[in-house]
Amino acid sequence: MDRKFRFALQASDGKARRGTITLPRGTIQTPAFMPVGTAATVKAMLPESVRATGAEILLGNTYHLMLRPTAERIDRLGGLHRFMNWDGPILTDSGGFQVMSLSDLRKMSEQGVRFRSHIDGSEHWLTPERSMEIQRLLGSDIVMCFDECTPFPADAATARASMDLSMRWARRSRDAFGDRPGYALFGIQQGSVYPDQRGESAARLREIGFDGYAIGGLAVGEGQDKMFEVLDYAPGMLPDDRPRYLMGVGKPDDIVGAVARGVDMFDCVLPTRSGRTGQVFTRRGVLNIKNARHQDDPRPIDDSCSCPACRSYSRAYLHHVFRAGEIISAMLLTWHNLHYYQVLMAGIRDSIESGCFAEFEATFHAARRQGDIDPL
Amino acid sequence: MDRKFRFALQASDGKARRGTITLPRGTIQTPAFMPVGTAATVKAMLPESVRATGAEILLGNTYHLMLRPTAERIDRLGGLHRFMNWDGPILTDSGGFQVMSLSDLRKMSEQGVRFRSHIDGSEHWLTPERSMEIQRLLGSDIVMCFDECTPFPADAATARASMDLSMRWARRSRDAFGDRPGYALFGIQQGSVYPDQRGESAARLREIGFDGYAIGGLAVGEGQDKMFEVLDYAPGMLPDDRPRYLMGVGKPDDIVGAVARGVDMFDCVLPTRSGRTGQVFTRRGVLNIKNARHQDDPRPIDDSCSCPACRSYSRAYLHHVFRAGEIISAMLLTWHNLHYYQVLMAGIRDSIESGCFAEFEATFHAARRQGDIDPL
Repeated sequence: MDRKFRFALQASDGKARRGTITLPRGTIQTPAFMPVGTAATVKAMLPESVRATGAEILLGNTYHLMLRPTAERIDRLGGLHRFMNWDGPILTDSGGFQVMSLSDLRKMSEQGVRFRSHIDGSEHWLTPERSMEIQRLLGSDIVMCFDECTPFPADAATARASMDLSMRWARRSRDAFGDRPGYALFGIQQGSVYPDQRGESAARLREIGFDGYAIGGLAVGEGQDKMFEVLDYAPGMLPDDRPRYLMGVGKPDDIVGAVARGVDMFDCVLPTRSGRTGQVFTRRGVLNIKNARHQDDPRPIDDSCSCPACRSYSRAYLHHVFRAGEIISAMLLTWHNLHYYQVLMAGIRDSIESGCFAEFEATFHAARRQGDIDPL
Repeated sequence: MDRKFRFALQASDGKARRGTITLPRGTIQTPAFMPVGTAATVKAMLPESVRATGAEILLGNTYHLMLRPTAERIDRLGGLHRFMNWDGPILTDSGGFQVMSLSDLRKMSEQGVRFRSHIDGSEHWLTPERSMEIQRLLGSDIVMCFDECTPFPADAATARASMDLSMRWARRSRDAFGDRPGYALFGIQQGSVYPDQRGESAARLREIGFDGYAIGGLAVGEGQDKMFEVLDYAPGMLPDDRPRYLMGVGKPDDIVGAVARGVDMFDCVLPTRSGRTGQVFTRRGVLNIKNARHQDDPRPIDDSCSCPACRSYSRAYLHHVFRAGEIISAMLLTWHNLHYYQVLMAGIRDSIESGCFAEFEATFHAARRQGDIDPL
């Protein structure tokens, strides 16, 4: 088996890129969307169903897994892939973002973050070294540097101090990761909304050298306009020959706009979380299956969709099981949403290959302006 | 298509019977276990997965469906089969049992039961005629008479008054059902623990004439010994050439004991409900996946089981996702339990066919006495 992490660019169209990531556990066609499997499960889905939607890589959350069932336990049980029955590649985050948003009583220092578990109050440390160790114990194929996700808004001085810290932690992450053939380490660019800081962060990461580069500190409340402003320049500061990953993004139109600006990889809880709250993604926008107008509607969510929810169930049925609180509602709506996201990515990839990404974008936005199918 | 409901006995071994029910929507090998799909879904399962466990018929609950989404709505949407994406036979109960256990402010009279919905407080009537109408609107293949499930304990006079009422309602159910080729109507024997009343009930039902006969008023708190005492004589009072259905039963050893006493059909929420509470059925008894002893156990629930939970997941994983409250826990454990029940029924059928049901029973009880697999 080829033990090398590789990224090959097949085509580009404007700034949009069509590539392939090769890892020992499988290849990933980019632009790619990674479903989130927080606690060793993509919520409400069997892994073979996630695979059936077209997903080629999952994201796992270091923070959740280190607390329960613990990285050491997963290691003893043969690693995360075997534990959760997913044999494709897995990317894990560093735990840095979620320790700040979820844990109790955290205390940050140059060394790292000390915090208490939101589950049982137990005390833990996360440092660049510990994050690398946890991600190695999990068996993650793509490991993320431990960093601080700079909050938004941040003034220039605050953003710089945070970026500086993240760059020092990037160095320590790289050193702690070591040489692990077949496994990849991604650096994370910070710098908030300041072009000079984004540039400096990119330069420092390139100097350290990573297999891929993430764009961090976005999708944290700044809004799409501001995010696109940063994406107008930030991806171009990163190496052309490495994948670029926009963490935690996003809505379908966020993804299309980010691809147009040169991003290759995405992850987001939106399709899975929305599946559990009755929000359904379609090429004509979002609909809420809870709405009473669906209760007598014999039509599928989208008659052009080939997911199990659309092939075999009416809106009326999906409305009924959602209102009744039935688990099958989360199962079918999550499946539909993940299917929609993968179909979106496949459409994006095809259009870049054939040099008509601009037409794809135009069609994408036109369908959404049309809104949901006509009432009965 | 043959539009007739038929029951053919292939073999018997002692009182145990091996038969086949033929309906336009499919055949059912008996003894059969029917998974419960209360609100138009077998909880936490896709219908194709229910089918994959070996189930050939589902049970739907009239009481729940009449309240939400309503029988009239299901009828407008093409019937329950299409609504819930199950093309095999469906048996519906009459609503009689659940209106007494779940509804508010019920008032019973000769005419029927007036009650308020436990969901929204709206007022409804259930009568033999209305129950037949609802079950017809749902498109149920096997319709149950509207009856009163005599509570336990009941003194002889109370039991008799209740049985008398149920027999008058059986007559009205038969009249209201009319002649519907391809659809079956089952009568329900009552009479509590009184042999003379069970005999009289059976005689009155036979006089009316039904396609099959249920044994009612059991599994309502009397305990297995008392239930088996009644089953020692009650099934034999019903026609030999018709299926006998023991409603709401039961635990695996209840089913084995009831088959030994001449019962052909069963339904119970136990495998599905237990799947959601972490109780797992195996040939060596019940285990609780929540128990901490499973947290490091790399072995499957049962290495001889071919269900998805046992093929691809460790006890450690199932323990983890149960403790984390993940939906996949309910999905996998329910699948395992339904699979176990269907494997149990297939074993029962095979052993009756080959004339060794007594040996099957002995092996069944011996494995359970052994208990769960040895600790690591």
